[in-house]
Amino acid sequence: MNENQNLTHREGANFGVEKKQPQTKQRKQVSNRQPKAQNLQKEQNFAVKTNKKPVKITFLGGVGEIGKNITAIEYDDEIIVVDGGLAFPTGEFPGIDLVVPDISYLIANKSKVKGIVLTHGHEDHIGGLPYILNELKVPVYGTPMTLALLDNKMQEHRIEYKAVTVKPKNLLKLGNFQIEFIKVSHSIAGSLALCISTPVGNIIHTGDFKIDFEPIDGSMTDLTRFGELGKKGVNLLLCESTNVCRKGYSMSESNVGRTLEGLFEKFAGKRLFVSTFASNVHRLQQLLWIAEKFKRKVAFAGRSMINITEAAAKIGELSYNRENIIDIDKIDKYADGELLILCTGSQGEPLSALTRMAHGEFPKVKIGEGDVVIFSASPIPGNEKAVYNVINALYKKGADVIYDELAEVHASGHACQEELKTIHALTNPKFFIPIHGEYRHLKRHKELAISMGMNSRDIIMPELGMQVEMGENYIKQAGFVTAGIRLVDGYGLGDLESNVLKERKQLSEEGICVAVINMSSSGEGGFEPFIITRGVVYEKEAEAFTEDARSVIASALREQDLRSFDPNEIKANIKKVLSNFIYKRTKRRPMILTILLMA
Amino acid sequence: MNENQNLTHREGANFGVEKKQPQTKQRKQVSNRQPKAQNLQKEQNFAVKTNKKPVKITFLGGVGEIGKNITAIEYDDEIIVVDGGLAFPTGEFPGIDLVVPDISYLIANKSKVKGIVLTHGHEDHIGGLPYILNELKVPVYGTPMTLALLDNKMQEHRIEYKAVTVKPKNLLKLGNFQIEFIKVSHSIAGSLALCISTPVGNIIHTGDFKIDFEPIDGSMTDLTRFGELGKKGVNLLLCESTNVCRKGYSMSESNVGRTLEGLFEKFAGKRLFVSTFASNVHRLQQLLWIAEKFKRKVAFAGRSMINITEAAAKIGELSYNRENIIDIDKIDKYADGELLILCTGSQGEPLSALTRMAHGEFPKVKIGEGDVVIFSASPIPGNEKAVYNVINALYKKGADVIYDELAEVHASGHACQEELKTIHALTNPKFFIPIHGEYRHLKRHKELAISMGMNSRDIIMPELGMQVEMGENYIKQAGFVTAGIRLVDGYGLGDLESNVLKERKQLSEEGICVAVINMSSSGEGGFEPFIITRGVVYEKEAEAFTEDARSVIASALREQDLRSFDPNEIKANIKKVLSNFIYKRTKRRPMILTILLMA
Repeated sequence: MNENQNLTHREGANFGVEKKQPQTKQRKQVSNRQPKAQNLQKEQNFAVKTNKKPVKITFLGGVGEIGKNITAIEYDDEIIVVDGGLAFPTGEFPGIDLVVPDISYLIANKSKVKGIVLTHGHEDHIGGLPYILNELKVPVYGTPMTLALLDNKMQEHRIEYKAVTVKPKNLLKLGNFQIEFIKVSHSIAGSLALCISTPVGNIIHTGDFKIDFEPIDGSMTDLTRFGELGKKGVNLLLCESTNVCRKGYSMSESNVGRTLEGLFEKFAGKRLFVSTFASNVHRLQQLLWIAEKFKRKVAFAGRSMINITEAAAKIGELSYNRENIIDIDKIDKYADGELLILCTGSQGEPLSALTRMAHGEFPKVKIGEGDVVIFSASPIPGNEKAVYNVINALYKKGADVIYDELAEVHASGHACQEELKTIHALTNPKFFIPIHGEYRHLKRHKELAISMGMNSRDIIMPELGMQVEMGENYIKQAGFVTAGIRLVDGYGLGDLESNVLKERKQLSEEGICVAVINMSSSGEGGFEPFIITRGVVYEKEAEAFTEDARSVIASALREQDLRSFDPNEIKANIKKVLSNFIYKRTKRRPMILTILLMA
Repeated sequence: MNENQNLTHREGANFGVEKKQPQTKQRKQVSNRQPKAQNLQKEQNFAVKTNKKPVKITFLGGVGEIGKNITAIEYDDEIIVVDGGLAFPTGEFPGIDLVVPDISYLIANKSKVKGIVLTHGHEDHIGGLPYILNELKVPVYGTPMTLALLDNKMQEHRIEYKAVTVKPKNLLKLGNFQIEFIKVSHSIAGSLALCISTPVGNIIHTGDFKIDFEPIDGSMTDLTRFGELGKKGVNLLLCESTNVCRKGYSMSESNVGRTLEGLFEKFAGKRLFVSTFASNVHRLQQLLWIAEKFKRKVAFAGRSMINITEAAAKIGELSYNRENIIDIDKIDKYADGELLILCTGSQGEPLSALTRMAHGEFPKVKIGEGDVVIFSASPIPGNEKAVYNVINALYKKGADVIYDELAEVHASGHACQEELKTIHALTNPKFFIPIHGEYRHLKRHKELAISMGMNSRDIIMPELGMQVEMGENYIKQAGFVTAGIRLVDGYGLGDLESNVLKERKQLSEEGICVAVINMSSSGEGGFEPFIITRGVVYEKEAEAFTEDARSVIASALREQDLRSFDPNEIKANIKKVLSNFIYKRTKRRPMILTILLMA
């Protein structure tokens, strides 16, 4: 059961959420960046050790990879965790549902963990929580939007947990840590950066962000606050790196709105379908506004679209006139030009509303000639093929399709180079660790920081499981802890070394051959071995194959002295003979199971 | 054995290759495009049938997909085939090596096929030929570069065939067809477009092309010839569509050279690695020139890099000073700044030179700090992940990596919108069929043609297997023939409906459970069923699982009346019981094989 308690900054003191206070402790003004002097100072400080214990930052996910973001920040016997995401499995993990972080380190230090602070509600930041909160019984802190999305998930898994609502400008005290929440723009409402005050200095964790000068919710990434904190002194910046390879600035979300409005004008009279992430509430907000302006009724299609818009409306993140919303069953009562259907499936997900519509498998809606479908999203790397398959299928049905290659119908939620530089300049950190990216992103982000005057020695390239130690005036790598992935496989949890995955991989590429030999029924000179293959032989060749395989085994058995036999030896021999026979015949080496039955 | 006979236009008469002749037959001047008048004329012509038989164009690949391009053009009892490509299998085809076209139609019409004409030597245009030429014993026509690449392939497969060399401006007579070869620029040397004269009019097939105003070989896409043919009259344009979604013009290959030269300057003193397609001879030519200018010795790494550069040099498509080439074993004798290593692996192929270097598995070369690696190629859609894995691994080894996101180190070989418009304008075809693209590309290409004044009725959207009938003044869809894919699987050839693929898919996602029950050994009340699973149960749970599965089966058997049993009924019952047991336990439905042994 969810004990979500809506404690805003007005009533949050009970749960450690305080109103912002003037901060005097533990922050000191650092001089403007002077690399040379700083290095001297650093070396000095290595020699003259301070009394304070160091802060340890442990990277349990999200570095050297896109996905499953999770970072532990530790001081003395206290740990706070930032985010707890998942990653989606790719082809290399056949049959795996989800990939979640290995949190052995947190479990081993269970008693230290004070809470989990969430930057925002995307799957790669909260999707692993059902597999974390079942082991760590600690409170979770996030914005209403983040917690609404988390609660959907936790209800499904039937896990009890405690959630505490926070908002930008709130202060949260967790043991020796004090966390200030900073408003940032991103492709989901309710996104936060964090300023984590520790006894040895402030850490800024950007979460995922962009700088949008025309934000839909009217409230910008709080650049001023980043600047103020920079002025007071930031010891360490942990900054996301997703778009570090892209020059310039990301497009404003408002620009997408203008493009969409143009398309509504262009396609007046036609039935409009728009697919986007259900969690991209600002995109949906714009679409609802535009629909109202163009006098179109809106129908939602797809489970997450219905659930999330409802949840977002309930907490005030999405506002619309209920009279303009109609049930998807009722669309036939309206003319084409009076309809907007907002649907899931922007990533070509097989079971989503739009994918089913494209393949004629969505009973309530038939897409065809005259319809217009807008993909208001970019394919996430790896999803391109699935997305284009849906686009092709829609075109074949006669629909017109607009996607990001053709019009500015999507804006990224991640900061490009100049935005990243803005945050670096404003926070002016003593030390920097790039996060949230593959190694190439982190590396480029390091170069960006160096180009702005940072010294390479003050930057650490994080790796999965790396523990970094930070003092007031130094930062250093301090070894590695257990970290990695857990694979959610139905009810099972595996890892990369699991037998199951390796077996599936071989099965998928080479198939399997089962040979059963009933030793007890051996008559004169023959055992009539029983052969079944799957994924090896094409039907038309199956009969001849089986016959030949049986005679190959039978002749191998005849040559073996069966009176003094060792069953393992017989099995190994049959396996070898069979494997060679199959390879010669098919150029494949299937998995071979040899079963000897003895009475 | 290859009977490749180098018959250029000077000596080609014997094999039907003639010098260009003034053409008067079968071509008539068409007026400038006047859609309305033309339609009237068309309708008239439907009524007043001409005496001539129609030409049939059959699409056996490359439409509605990227890859395995192959088109049959037929008049009376003669067929010529344009290209014979392959496609690379993606995750949906586990264990499949290659995808080649289903040529049932050509086999059924074997006696009609006069020859295969190749536009260029990329895999998606020639890679299927070993699986075509083993069934169709017809001559193949192509440029020296195309035939050199084909010959490598055919030698490997040990298939005898006859190859005839052609060059731009050559004319080839094949029965009622006369084929004129037209020089085009593309990302491989020796690329051709075709003008196929038929009794009912000219067909232009562009092959793959771009318009490069600064081509490396000094010879441009022959725009003048396209214009002359347009003036004489083009009945049908078959034009490639790969980059139809990209605005403007493609970048010149020379521009890539300038970028590369800048990088050579920037990284003077460092060891340079450049990875590109071995068949991109013009890229390699530029790199060899630049290396010479910067006094770097060149070493080739990777089998195809060595083979193809050698073949290209032999036929004069690549020229370099042999003294500047060194063996990869000898690189240690030179300073870092004196070396350029050209290697395979630009697509992150697992066994390529660069991938092995990145993972420290290439014994002759150790990449590390101070080295610079340039990916002079874009990831082909679907290869992104593999490419970025290699980039990340190289960064981790300390190398600097330059790829297309960071600098203009690659130029596409395909025409963008303005280039496509140029060809449409110059050839001014009566009818148009977009080819070489997914449905969305073909659709956009159709729209491009309409925007230039064509009437939608004069454009046909081709589909796999579609047969199009063309007369002097009409074009129409005329049904479908068998077409699709054949899957090269070791020595086997399957298709989408093959049992093998379906079985592998289930095996890969759910695993397999084999239950063997020896009915002959049934003692009192028990059969001791034997259970093996693969890809289902994690090791730590395996023992308990097997025990429980056995008791589930044993109790199911006890409930069955075994005196009057039907073996199939018992098997079905065990399968059901076992499947339900496993689903409850793992949320998976593995393949279940039940084997009853009876004495």
